Amino acid sequence: MGKLLIVGTVAFDAIETPFGKTDKILGGAATYIGLAASQFNVESAIVSIVGDDMPEEYLTLLKDKNIDLSGLEIVKGGKTFYWKGKYHNDLNSRDTLVTELNVLADFNPVVPSGFKDADVVMLGNLHPSVQLSVINQMEKRPKLIVLDTMNFWMDNSLPELVEVIKHIDVITINDEEARQLSGEYSLVKAAAKIEKMGPKYVVIKKGEHGALLFHKKEVFFAPALPLEEVFDPTGAGDTFAGGFSGYLTQTENISFNNMKNAIIQGSNLASFCVEKFGTERIKKLTKEETTKRLHQFKTLSQFDIELQ
Amino acid sequence: MGKLLIVGTVAFDAIETPFGKTDKILGGAATYIGLAASQFNVESAIVSIVGDDMPEEYLTLLKDKNIDLSGLEIVKGGKTFYWKGKYHNDLNSRDTLVTELNVLADFNPVVPSGFKDADVVMLGNLHPSVQLSVINQMEKRPKLIVLDTMNFWMDNSLPELVEVIKHIDVITINDEEARQLSGEYSLVKAAAKIEKMGPKYVVIKKGEHGALLFHKKEVFFAPALPLEEVFDPTGAGDTFAGGFSGYLTQTENISFNNMKNAIIQGSNLASFCVEKFGTERIKKLTKEETTKRLHQFKTLSQFDIELQ
Repeated sequence: MGKLLIVGTVAFDAIETPFGKTDKILGGAATYIGLAASQFNVESAIVSIVGDDMPEEYLTLLKDKNIDLSGLEIVKGGKTFYWKGKYHNDLNSRDTLVTELNVLADFNPVVPSGFKDADVVMLGNLHPSVQLSVINQMEKRPKLIVLDTMNFWMDNSLPELVEVIKHIDVITINDEEARQLSGEYSLVKAAAKIEKMGPKYVVIKKGEHGALLFHKKEVFFAPALPLEEVFDPTGAGDTFAGGFSGYLTQTENISFNNMKNAIIQGSNLASFCVEKFGTERIKKLTKEETTKRLHQFKTLSQFDIELQ
Repeated sequence: MGKLLIVGTVAFDAIETPFGKTDKILGGAATYIGLAASQFNVESAIVSIVGDDMPEEYLTLLKDKNIDLSGLEIVKGGKTFYWKGKYHNDLNSRDTLVTELNVLADFNPVVPSGFKDADVVMLGNLHPSVQLSVINQMEKRPKLIVLDTMNFWMDNSLPELVEVIKHIDVITINDEEARQLSGEYSLVKAAAKIEKMGPKYVVIKKGEHGALLFHKKEVFFAPALPLEEVFDPTGAGDTFAGGFSGYLTQTENISFNNMKNAIIQGSNLASFCVEKFGTERIKKLTKEETTKRLHQFKTLSQFDIELQ
């Protein structure tokens, strides 16, 4: 069984969408990544930080998914990172109403000794220096290092971001971020430029428009499943990353062909994530449900044209 | 060999993109549809209208592709429909600078007697009453009637549009138009509502984000090929429609599975169209080029995940 090390936030989210709103609920990149990866046969651990205001039931939820939390620091008297956001009517954009870093401001990640030899490291969206610190703690070079990031770090910590992506294998960002990071409008050119910055594989997430995987001259496209309703997009990108890295950890095969499958697995799990608020849908997913929907992905995108 | 009847404009376009500009060149929905359909083994005819300012070389170009022009009315002393537009930097939106209807204002389409039994009718973007008039002239119900339209007719001739789409099999529109026509934001719901208005198949074009085919509970998605450069999007939607209807006419098979192939064929030809100004690229396409790119479409979207 492959080992997957996950780094990212475990947080409180308060979410408002056109369909309703929540009080503080469990959120954070590492939470979604961990829950998604738990769909696969992997040994996983989360490195993160919370305050002691984090309810025991949320931690139990993660532990019950066999996620090792020995790398989760709980700060006595500290407050957990908190994000509050409101989505616009089309759900494609949102306003951040509150960001309280709290204990995250002084986060020094410590990789548990049992995971310093992890096969795959999934660096969730966080300060690039925190991401780099985790890479530096690994005892041997992981077979695969995947990094997710966002425009915030391009705006505020570009030198650190440029440094950490020299050390990774796969970067996952959205289309606008790919354009910002590369200065190229064409995603083909953007991916080529980003590959020169370090990552051998560039995954460009386009939300409801699917995801692209670039590697040298090869390109793969995974559609998003057309849904009747998107209820809450929060965590979809992290869930995608968790499905992607979890599947690659399970299969222990990092060929381009298997990465195609990993992208589909990530898209599949993300399609569930958006159906309910927060982690509601993803935490209760069954193998039967995910397999059924994988068949839908096949029907959606596979064709059988005769070529000479 | 199947017969394809094409209705639409044959026009002058003047185009400005971030990469350059053209004087009046050959354009129009029927032109692009005809050129795209000529990639297939079909007997095709265009029903349209031009003034005698239309250069002989443009008509020769169409005739040389074995397109029957006996249904193309040439108005003595009349001026051909003229459109001038300027694309914005991202090529996803444009301003119309000039629209001169000219002879198109009094267009009464006449279907040539040899095509009143056409197998497939492709109704390019035009006034819905013109589209309906063509349907009414058919001696027998075509196996397939495909209609392309746009938001302009939804804004200005909605009752006529609602009437004509009662009589068709496939509608092709873009995502915003599908939302406008149905009043539904979700494309899944939009397609379901539009099916209730008449068409059994709904094709939603998303430009660089690909195209969706809906039929009852079935959905198929065709990606757009990620391109290094998009030079000029003019005619891409019409080229798509021409590839779609041309392929279905050639194969004489209107099953959902074959429509998947038709969508891919349309996307394939559209990917060439945008590489140069106007019809430059599409008019010189070789079978070798199109076949090679179909292989790219396969590589782009086909995966081989093992499912229980």
